[in-house]
Amino acid sequence: MCKMIALFTLAATSAFAVDGGPATPLRGYTSEHSALEIQWEQKFRAMPDTARLRENMRRLSARPHHVGSPYDKDNAEWLLAQLKSYGLDAKIEVFDTLFPTPKTRKLELLGPTKFVAKLDEPALKIDPTSDQKKEQLPTYNAYSSDGDVTAPLVYVNYGAPSDYEQLEAMGVSVKGAIVIVRYGQTWRGIKPKLAAQHGAVGCLIYSDPRDDGYARGDIYPDGPMRPSDGAQRGSVMDMPVYPGDPQTPGIGAVPGAKLIPLAEVQTITKIPVMPISYEDAKPLLLSLGGELVPENWRGSLPITYKTGPSIAKAHLALVFNWDRKPLYDVLARIPGSTFPDQWVIRGNHHDAWVNGAGDPISGASPELEEARGLGELLKQGWRPQRTLLYCFWDGEEPALLGSTEWVETHAEELSKHAVAYFNSDGNGRGYFRAEGSHSLENFINSVTKDVEDPETKMSVWKRERLVSFSHAATEAQTELRSRSDTRIGALGSGSDYTAFIDHLGIASVNLGFGGEDQGGGQYHSIYDDFYWYTHFQDTDFVYGRALAQTAGTMMMRMADADVIPFQFGDFAETIHTYVVEVKKLADTMRSQIKERNTEIADGVYKALEDPKKKRIAPPVEALPPYFNFAPLDQASDDLTAAAADYDKALAANASKSSVNPELIRAERALLDSTGLPNRPWFQNMIYAPGFFTGYGVKTLPAVREAVEQKEWKGVDVEIARTAAAIERESVLLRAATQTLSAGGQ
Amino acid sequence: MCKMIALFTLAATSAFAVDGGPATPLRGYTSEHSALEIQWEQKFRAMPDTARLRENMRRLSARPHHVGSPYDKDNAEWLLAQLKSYGLDAKIEVFDTLFPTPKTRKLELLGPTKFVAKLDEPALKIDPTSDQKKEQLPTYNAYSSDGDVTAPLVYVNYGAPSDYEQLEAMGVSVKGAIVIVRYGQTWRGIKPKLAAQHGAVGCLIYSDPRDDGYARGDIYPDGPMRPSDGAQRGSVMDMPVYPGDPQTPGIGAVPGAKLIPLAEVQTITKIPVMPISYEDAKPLLLSLGGELVPENWRGSLPITYKTGPSIAKAHLALVFNWDRKPLYDVLARIPGSTFPDQWVIRGNHHDAWVNGAGDPISGASPELEEARGLGELLKQGWRPQRTLLYCFWDGEEPALLGSTEWVETHAEELSKHAVAYFNSDGNGRGYFRAEGSHSLENFINSVTKDVEDPETKMSVWKRERLVSFSHAATEAQTELRSRSDTRIGALGSGSDYTAFIDHLGIASVNLGFGGEDQGGGQYHSIYDDFYWYTHFQDTDFVYGRALAQTAGTMMMRMADADVIPFQFGDFAETIHTYVVEVKKLADTMRSQIKERNTEIADGVYKALEDPKKKRIAPPVEALPPYFNFAPLDQASDDLTAAAADYDKALAANASKSSVNPELIRAERALLDSTGLPNRPWFQNMIYAPGFFTGYGVKTLPAVREAVEQKEWKGVDVEIARTAAAIERESVLLRAATQTLSAGGQ
Repeated sequence: MCKMIALFTLAATSAFAVDGGPATPLRGYTSEHSALEIQWEQKFRAMPDTARLRENMRRLSARPHHVGSPYDKDNAEWLLAQLKSYGLDAKIEVFDTLFPTPKTRKLELLGPTKFVAKLDEPALKIDPTSDQKKEQLPTYNAYSSDGDVTAPLVYVNYGAPSDYEQLEAMGVSVKGAIVIVRYGQTWRGIKPKLAAQHGAVGCLIYSDPRDDGYARGDIYPDGPMRPSDGAQRGSVMDMPVYPGDPQTPGIGAVPGAKLIPLAEVQTITKIPVMPISYEDAKPLLLSLGGELVPENWRGSLPITYKTGPSIAKAHLALVFNWDRKPLYDVLARIPGSTFPDQWVIRGNHHDAWVNGAGDPISGASPELEEARGLGELLKQGWRPQRTLLYCFWDGEEPALLGSTEWVETHAEELSKHAVAYFNSDGNGRGYFRAEGSHSLENFINSVTKDVEDPETKMSVWKRERLVSFSHAATEAQTELRSRSDTRIGALGSGSDYTAFIDHLGIASVNLGFGGEDQGGGQYHSIYDDFYWYTHFQDTDFVYGRALAQTAGTMMMRMADADVIPFQFGDFAETIHTYVVEVKKLADTMRSQIKERNTEIADGVYKALEDPKKKRIAPPVEALPPYFNFAPLDQASDDLTAAAADYDKALAANASKSSVNPELIRAERALLDSTGLPNRPWFQNMIYAPGFFTGYGVKTLPAVREAVEQKEWKGVDVEIARTAAAIERESVLLRAATQTLSAGGQ
Repeated sequence: MCKMIALFTLAATSAFAVDGGPATPLRGYTSEHSALEIQWEQKFRAMPDTARLRENMRRLSARPHHVGSPYDKDNAEWLLAQLKSYGLDAKIEVFDTLFPTPKTRKLELLGPTKFVAKLDEPALKIDPTSDQKKEQLPTYNAYSSDGDVTAPLVYVNYGAPSDYEQLEAMGVSVKGAIVIVRYGQTWRGIKPKLAAQHGAVGCLIYSDPRDDGYARGDIYPDGPMRPSDGAQRGSVMDMPVYPGDPQTPGIGAVPGAKLIPLAEVQTITKIPVMPISYEDAKPLLLSLGGELVPENWRGSLPITYKTGPSIAKAHLALVFNWDRKPLYDVLARIPGSTFPDQWVIRGNHHDAWVNGAGDPISGASPELEEARGLGELLKQGWRPQRTLLYCFWDGEEPALLGSTEWVETHAEELSKHAVAYFNSDGNGRGYFRAEGSHSLENFINSVTKDVEDPETKMSVWKRERLVSFSHAATEAQTELRSRSDTRIGALGSGSDYTAFIDHLGIASVNLGFGGEDQGGGQYHSIYDDFYWYTHFQDTDFVYGRALAQTAGTMMMRMADADVIPFQFGDFAETIHTYVVEVKKLADTMRSQIKERNTEIADGVYKALEDPKKKRIAPPVEALPPYFNFAPLDQASDDLTAAAADYDKALAANASKSSVNPELIRAERALLDSTGLPNRPWFQNMIYAPGFFTGYGVKTLPAVREAVEQKEWKGVDVEIARTAAAIERESVLLRAATQTLSAGGQ
């Protein structure tokens, strides 16, 4: 591949000029630097090697490697040795965090026909790592409280707020019950949180075959999907309040850090919660009485899904070891030649629930290949202008522990120095996907135009863009085609970018490939291992290579630029769409409440009464007041103007690197140090995981959630706080424009 | 109840004045006649008796009573005796029609693991009529061709046109295969028709538990839903071409009628077809290879649904008796005192696939109670102005035989005399529903305001209207509230109104109650019987009573009016919505084809290629031309104006009965004697069952289907023909307005 690269000359500007339009220099680069950069990037993209990617995965997923396990530490040490062998300056940072593991797990159905849940994923002969019983964590939910409860069961679908409204309308209460809820839609930690809020005393989360079992494909080992005894481990900590070590909120859990007592921890569940397989769930679901559930509540078990309650009682008993365990974050540093105090950061976690070939090694292995590739470039004379940090986080699975504690520990330095954070996690075969800060949207578009999709040989950018056309609604297609940058989504939570973007306001991106295989079938089970991944996922590792090529190019292009290549036009335009959305949301909620009140007055609920069914009509509700959205409208317009001026000024002054310190603060301007309502750790006023969705993002979260949660009194206050954050961004951009336009470098 | 009625005085105008607004006379009635009518109607509505409704059902469903069975004739004779006992002039009309029954039914899966389908619905101890094996028809599809085929299986979802497009995109052909298709969405006769058109050699139609089995409720006998061995009998004749006796299209199958040879019959299927249970379907579905089907193709069996083909071959062998059997239509006549040549017709079939308590006796039993009630009224002195006909059709199940042959036989008289036809079929518990001619929309609204819903005690009209609010999309709610008449749907096919409205252009309505119970669970099985109905449906027969009250009031109010109470404002407004729809349809199809062509050119299908899956990109398609919708727009406007003038004139001349002969021709004006493209039997240019949906209506069918089927060259021709029919209606209404406004009676 190196020979081919030699054919490119300084005149070439893009490996895929066809997608990039006319040959202009890379954003934030002088023409000369741009041409050089393109050459180095091309060299880099020839480096990642599918055989090495495969071998990295084999090695890292050979044994279970959860927090506190011997192989977790072993992997960290191996990663360290690898990074050092590439010629990089690497080290391990150790933290100490709460990590509960189960001592007792018991689930049985009492009553006429007794049933005792198996709670076990059996080893499969064909799958060589599935029998490592001694090292495997059993199926459990981390940060569930201890508990021993006996109660009837009630089925609550996905356990989202709307599901409880539905149950209420059907006259079914979960008070005093153990809820049985299916995985999916909301983040799993939301399920016991809402169940407890509604008075449930226990929570069982099962994997319905409709969501990741036989309904979606052949089950393992014939196919990739979850077998009948498979269960999904996972954290149920209340991370939308704060992630990381529950005993050290907001500060780094370095050895010796001051701990808040366990009893005072807010983020541990209020009720015991456990994941179960659909084989274990079936007798429980069959025991339910009550009415047939609504159509969209039905799974794919061959049963009649009912709400419950059950006549038979279930008994759930859970006891945990509440130990603190060491974490091993592995970090490599490539110092910047020109701007050593400007840090570009890359991360992927290395810990898993069990063997974790897909989650996270399919992302960690490419990250390691990137580091190797950059080590090679250094040997060939490449000198990045900025400092690059390559991080391999420990403890992501329980609670984003490794990244959160590291960010909290180094908060002050990071606030000063961090330019951007590029995250990945499990990776698969198919289409590129990215979510992140919209000041990086244009940058992501620019990089993906230069990476080749291994299957279609078109650029990764073009493939994603074309596929988005085919998925879009008719009305959206024109907008998609007319916009030169493909939109990226916003970041909620679910991986290690959280502390970077939400706590410290560091521009972040989460990226990866997927969509062609059914990727989630073994999520957090013992079968997410090398055999499974190499039979049913990115089996020849060409998308692992594409990830390394994409993320590595991003790291280089961000590190080498003369001026940090943020672009604020896309950001301002996206903010405008969010403002339109929250205004519409308020109007929609007002008209929905008005409509429902009218229906109550008209007698619609009386008309719907059925003597054979229980139906509870909703109460009349006060209409929300009208809100003063003017500050947001103003801020959005101001930002649009400021961004346009900035982007124009940059085009004329691409070498004016004195603007970089201001740009580093650009995403920080979006923070409000008092944080979001009821969760001060989350300070970004533009992006946050939803308080009741967990994974799902809420943009302009303070405003949006005040409206959604009907906290009418708070809405105007949150509009003002959010508008102020956006205005701070405009002020900063105006100053940056000044800097660009003034004389000197 | 009669005592209460005595309290009403001549001044009362409506039993539910609260729904009716200010007390104005009934439409088409003088004030005096209106007041009298209201009194008679109130007396009538006190007549239907739930104990008699129950006993009628017990008697009529006591044994299997399909066409040609002893109990079918027995029931006809019993109905005749009942009608005579009410003092009515009644008779039986006999027809002679083709009715195939099975001699041989065989289905097996050959190959590694042989499976032989059971093809049997077992008797249940608890259900006393389920064991009448000797009299039960086995599970089969009537008018399937004979056949003996051995071929691989392919799953085609519901077997609709879009399903075959999906298969094509996935590179799967049904050529030479036996298709396995699930019941639902399209009418069952469409399934083998489309399968044969795509080259299949056989067709198996199974009942997926998602559609009417355990997914929808407890299975029989614990609940109302289809058990694992239950199968749905039913006709697969190509009725969208013409219904009725296949050997006498367009003419009455009276004994001795000229028959076309069996070999020349168009409406018998081209391939053998048989219904099966999900227990029999499961091994067949499990034998399928190929890819996972799309999400909306998946049923509720605990399997991975795949497209096929299967490696194992299936063997299907069917031989039928192609006998002609006698039909017994039972008819009662109440002669009109003033306008004996103006006929108001009521019908419900009496034949069933097996015992048929739900289908059709839950509708036939109320019809019989209506006849009894009217007999009582006659004894009390009521004299209807028009002639009433009460019909109990035979042979509806195989092919609407009894109604079609009767209509064809009496076509000339009916064209002259028929005012309106009121049909019902199976009836259930819950909300009123009606579809029909929109010249009757206002009339239906007016009658249902005067019938009490047995559960909520509000009017049937009000309940239905309020429930429609709760189901409507936000945008539709305002329109629903602002419109004084609740909309009725249009008539497709599926019951005995077909020949009336589609062949002869007689204003028709199909009405009934339902929606609170899962009604379809035993559809066309041996378990649709008295035990099932009285345990899981309208168990106390109060909705049977409501049906008798509603339909009986309609018959009386239509028969007693001075001027036939058609209203054309609603009709014109509805026609306008259809014109808007077909114009939008053409635009949507044009932009969809344009968008797809763009996607092909852009490389979207290349971007979607997956080396692990077969994907066939669609070909570029020529864009449809623009059509001349001007004649339809003009006709719609002309009709709106003519209808407004007519309705105004009627309000001022409610006693001008000389207009009635013109009104009788109003719906006839919508006929075009050359019929719809490829199906001349269907002559109504406004309403028809879809050529590829069967049950589902197509309004302005000649235009709409030309567009849908991309018969671009025919569109302008069909627009002109349809517009001409609407213009004929306007001309007729202008003449009627003249008649109303001229001097004299």
